[in-house]
Amino acid sequence: MNRDTLGVVRRTIPRPPREDVAALAPFGVATVHEAMGRTGLMRPYLRPIYPTARLCGPAVTVLLQPGDNWMLHVAAEQVQPGDVVVAACTTESEDGFFGELLATSFRARGAVGLIIDGGVRDVADLTAMDFPVFSRAIHAKGTVKATLGSVNIPVVCANALVEPGDVVVADVDGVCVVPGNRVAEVAAAAAAREAKEEAKREQFRAGVLGLDLYNMRPALEAAGFTYIDEDV
Amino acid sequence: MNRDTLGVVRRTIPRPPREDVAALAPFGVATVHEAMGRTGLMRPYLRPIYPTARLCGPAVTVLLQPGDNWMLHVAAEQVQPGDVVVAACTTESEDGFFGELLATSFRARGAVGLIIDGGVRDVADLTAMDFPVFSRAIHAKGTVKATLGSVNIPVVCANALVEPGDVVVADVDGVCVVPGNRVAEVAAAAAAREAKEEAKREQFRAGVLGLDLYNMRPALEAAGFTYIDEDV
Amino acid sequence: MNRDTLGVVRRTIPRPPREDVAALAPFGVATVHEAMGRTGLMRPYLRPIYPTARLCGPAVTVLLQPGDNWMLHVAAEQVQPGDVVVAACTTESEDGFFGELLATSFRARGAVGLIIDGGVRDVADLTAMDFPVFSRAIHAKGTVKATLGSVNIPVVCANALVEPGDVVVADVDGVCVVPGNRVAEVAAAAAAREAKEEAKREQFRAGVLGLDLYNMRPALEAAGFTYIDEDV
Amino acid sequence: MNRDTLGVVRRTIPRPPREDVAALAPFGVATVHEAMGRTGLMRPYLRPIYPTARLCGPAVTVLLQPGDNWMLHVAAEQVQPGDVVVAACTTESEDGFFGELLATSFRARGAVGLIIDGGVRDVADLTAMDFPVFSRAIHAKGTVKATLGSVNIPVVCANALVEPGDVVVADVDGVCVVPGNRVAEVAAAAAAREAKEEAKREQFRAGVLGLDLYNMRPALEAAGFTYIDEDV
Amino acid sequence: MNRDTLGVVRRTIPRPPREDVAALAPFGVATVHEAMGRTGLMRPYLRPIYPTARLCGPAVTVLLQPGDNWMLHVAAEQVQPGDVVVAACTTESEDGFFGELLATSFRARGAVGLIIDGGVRDVADLTAMDFPVFSRAIHAKGTVKATLGSVNIPVVCANALVEPGDVVVADVDGVCVVPGNRVAEVAAAAAAREAKEEAKREQFRAGVLGLDLYNMRPALEAAGFTYIDEDV
Amino acid sequence: MNRDTLGVVRRTIPRPPREDVAALAPFGVATVHEAMGRTGLMRPYLRPIYPTARLCGPAVTVLLQPGDNWMLHVAAEQVQPGDVVVAACTTESEDGFFGELLATSFRARGAVGLIIDGGVRDVADLTAMDFPVFSRAIHAKGTVKATLGSVNIPVVCANALVEPGDVVVADVDGVCVVPGNRVAEVAAAAAAREAKEEAKREQFRAGVLGLDLYNMRPALEAAGFTYIDEDV
Repeated sequence: MNRDTLGVVRRTIPRPPREDVAALAPFGVATVHEAMGRTGLMRPYLRPIYPTARLCGPAVTVLLQPGDNWMLHVAAEQVQPGDVVVAACTTESEDGFFGELLATSFRARGAVGLIIDGGVRDVADLTAMDFPVFSRAIHAKGTVKATLGSVNIPVVCANALVEPGDVVVADVDGVCVVPGNRVAEVAAAAAAREAKEEAKREQFRAGVLGLDLYNMRPALEAAGFTYIDEDV
Repeated sequence: MNRDTLGVVRRTIPRPPREDVAALAPFGVATVHEAMGRTGLMRPYLRPIYPTARLCGPAVTVLLQPGDNWMLHVAAEQVQPGDVVVAACTTESEDGFFGELLATSFRARGAVGLIIDGGVRDVADLTAMDFPVFSRAIHAKGTVKATLGSVNIPVVCANALVEPGDVVVADVDGVCVVPGNRVAEVAAAAAAREAKEEAKREQFRAGVLGLDLYNMRPALEAAGFTYIDEDV
Repeated sequence: MNRDTLGVVRRTIPRPPREDVAALAPFGVATVHEAMGRTGLMRPYLRPIYPTARLCGPAVTVLLQPGDNWMLHVAAEQVQPGDVVVAACTTESEDGFFGELLATSFRARGAVGLIIDGGVRDVADLTAMDFPVFSRAIHAKGTVKATLGSVNIPVVCANALVEPGDVVVADVDGVCVVPGNRVAEVAAAAAAREAKEEAKREQFRAGVLGLDLYNMRPALEAAGFTYIDEDV
Repeated sequence: MNRDTLGVVRRTIPRPPREDVAALAPFGVATVHEAMGRTGLMRPYLRPIYPTARLCGPAVTVLLQPGDNWMLHVAAEQVQPGDVVVAACTTESEDGFFGELLATSFRARGAVGLIIDGGVRDVADLTAMDFPVFSRAIHAKGTVKATLGSVNIPVVCANALVEPGDVVVADVDGVCVVPGNRVAEVAAAAAAREAKEEAKREQFRAGVLGLDLYNMRPALEAAGFTYIDEDV
Repeated sequence: MNRDTLGVVRRTIPRPPREDVAALAPFGVATVHEAMGRTGLMRPYLRPIYPTARLCGPAVTVLLQPGDNWMLHVAAEQVQPGDVVVAACTTESEDGFFGELLATSFRARGAVGLIIDGGVRDVADLTAMDFPVFSRAIHAKGTVKATLGSVNIPVVCANALVEPGDVVVADVDGVCVVPGNRVAEVAAAAAAREAKEEAKREQFRAGVLGLDLYNMRPALEAAGFTYIDEDV
Repeated sequence: MNRDTLGVVRRTIPRPPREDVAALAPFGVATVHEAMGRTGLMRPYLRPIYPTARLCGPAVTVLLQPGDNWMLHVAAEQVQPGDVVVAACTTESEDGFFGELLATSFRARGAVGLIIDGGVRDVADLTAMDFPVFSRAIHAKGTVKATLGSVNIPVVCANALVEPGDVVVADVDGVCVVPGNRVAEVAAAAAAREAKEEAKREQFRAGVLGLDLYNMRPALEAAGFTYIDEDV
């Protein structure tokens, strides 16, 4: 199948083991991104529709056409419990592709949230439902159902490649994509990182400086950094 | 009077019957926009200053000059209980045209909120007052009172035409303008739409797919949409 | 020392008397900006990471390099209780320069908040800590520690000049810089302004119009402003 | 007909006398905007696709749907020699609605240019043809022909109201809309303004200051403006 | 190798046959994008640094760190005659990663241009050299050489996936990516499309309407489109 | 005088020796910025109104109010031959503060160009006059003359501090500010840099790689950079 092929849906996609997804779920996006070697982030223009929104799950991917949400209905059928729908668009479009009715449908199918490089509406209802959505806009503008996109093909969403079955983690800090075959490894690395951070946190709380904790003073000196005591 | 005439205020504007406005008030912006045949929306860069802000009422319109809020004081005198002030600007300007003192004055006159294609300030106070404002920016910058604009002329605000007495509906999804002579009709259409949606909601909750509820499968097939079962 | 010199930190900076800072702290940014003669505001793209964030304190200034937070660690050592860290950058950069570990360190040193012309992360944690940050972005992207900037030199942050020891006031309306030698004067002017505003507020509450309270009618008439009573 | 009605085209629109349009054509947008009392400008995000693009003519108006250029074909049939097509969109959309083939068709019908609150493509060809277009974007993305908009209804384009038959003037400074019944008056005012400006130009060339030419010194003094001769 | 792995360069990448690239080169981006089934476009914020810039060639890909152009030097060694360097960045960065010295080096290696999701400088020199660059910004700001990225890994540049050896086509309309194994097919489809367009162009020139050429009238009627002859 | 004081003009400002300015004038902005230790750049949203615009001269500074160009007339009187007017604004404003008449006046006074954190108009005329302007926008919108700003005070323009008499250098790469007392030193450093670059340019032309010219290979190896020869 060609990259970005329009007009197709794949019904069988690989999903990582549930226990791996569960192991990854407690970690925040900043930690996951670090645990992946600082890769996988979507662009920061995607924002949660309410501050406490967060999610973690395998991606059912969607390629939308501008102002057209037909493919979200196709995607709903492909959702399995625990999935996250990740919707890219062939171009910039901030219309309200998604609202409370579709959220009701998605939730009934087991979806745990939506990432969309487009707009959403019914935000008060979605907030009341605690249905997490990360979008580029909030916009009441309705969409049509006229032009084919695709479901479960590799998509580029907010500048990140997402393959169907990749695990997506999102919270107020942003959205991160973990390749499906790296979930367990990344969860372990995230746990290791958090353990180390707890030790550092204690040190910081006690007033130790990063300059000393990370042994930065020699590097600063080597780079020619200068401390000036008098006022200049 | 010429379109966009500067330096005038009209003291008599038509307002739709109160009961029509009351009939429209319960509906959200997304619903109202659909009920109007998908017209009437302002651009989505207008955002509520707090997430639960919402309003519905006839428009007292204002045409501001950049960095100048003189006309908001003129508008205050024209406000009748239940009105919404809708302030456009002759150019882009994000200064803080409006704050807590003016809100106190507007409320004393009976205004139920403000739509402004500009900035506002005193947002903590406005939030505490629960005075709903939809603006393009939050900015502490003060304004002057030096150049004439107009009040109660037709204005274009955030790319939507607003005639004095049109009814403006706003919530977290955006801002929609209902022509003054269509309020009852739109309220009825909105109610009809909500009734239909409740039925759909039940179906979605029960796991019925949009593909079936909206009978989309034949159209997908006619458009050449392909289901693929093997991994590719 | 040249303006914008890279690679230096000044260890001694002037700070205004604590009581002057305390006198200024109760006032909001809009009031302070007015009390300064409408000067001192940063650009409004700096936003609080949570709506109730606010701060007031002398500035420890930082000049960052893009995607590099080395200098924030240098700054931590220079913080004294009550200080605000003000971080400019040599170019636009929205990476997550600052997160919960650095906030823990800053707080241990006595810092009361951060202004940063860049991005931050760990926003859920920072909110839980009630550590106020005003930033241009929220972004999980990590930063390196590779290139020298400076600490406690004059910086331009979000289009405002900040000298070390200037007092920075920030709330949901924006960020304002008060020169170190004007803090007492500005606090007094802010208090005077608030006193006057309380009187006006009472008038507005009672239904008096700004047109009358500010005696605007003669100026409107002189400018040729026209009241029209018939519909046109 | 309701404002913004979708799915209609009006075949008969009023056009101002040709000689009035011809009288207006020589003037630049800045002059025309001033001659109209500083009204009528579209937002400045509309830019010419090449710097020397300019046009003047009565508007055939179009309301597009996002990513859909069906209505431009409907509009082509309504074009009369000398017309300008003015295309608004129901929402933000930067796709390439218009290219060299449509320009060939428009030109064959006598159109003298296009104003579009959307994207265009084939810009090298359009430039070679000297077919002036003012757009919000250049984008190769193609569009579909699936959803109804309208032709020759009042539209809001880049925040300006345009009635069919209004005259649109555009050059590198922007786009200005002259109501159809004001064309002769505005052309006369523009000519008067240019005549006055030529006299001022001579004065400025001779070194006379605006301070003196416009007699600004008394107003500056009255406002408290201060000249300082020593260095401070 | 993991997606987005940092710190590696692949020295051997597949390139499509030269004659296929040559066959594709004459076509504009809009045509190529259509010939690919409307896929492959980068976001339109990438703009040529001068209007006549255009290029076509296989991609040597680069993943940059913000404000750091180290990897462009690594890439220079991997360039073969006819190649285009495609530089993505791990985050948004508008610094001047590339200038006239690097262009001299790239040209000496045979590179025919640069696509960069970042900034460039020395634009007057690059224009004089006729070295085509498509960038998100022009910025004099210099960059460092401190942090590892990668060369010749799959990258996402301006929201499009680019594999090393994919062919990139760019002109004033934008930038399009053709997968390496589809170049001959896309060139053939582009040629076919252009042939068809020439026939249409003749029709349009002769005054035939798109409504008739594309047989749109029945579809309009079926959709309920209404022609109105009286003024309303 | 307080920073940002409104309502004053200083008639005496220091200007660097003419020969120092002349020595600096031949160099481009990228070179000057490097010669200053990578400091002094304005934000890159300032763009030339035509691609070949360039200028170099001491700054007469202006602080404008939004939508108000009164202070540009005050500034004209302070211009001496060779000066550049640098106009900041108390807030964001894209109106057309400056056009061909003021340019005629400025040129008559000897001004060699304008830097403005606002909009300009009459761009076709300014281009024909070859009067270089660097602005944030092009906009036909006129301005008023109602509110006091200042002339020849320190201003922050596009995020850079400019003192009266500082030398401003601008070309298509951007705008750079050289403190008045560093002009000779920076000109010398720029000349030295250009001399060194010519030698490098010859090497690059001959096919030498930056990897070797800058001896980057050991640093890459030390950082763990990996060359991969097989396809992966």
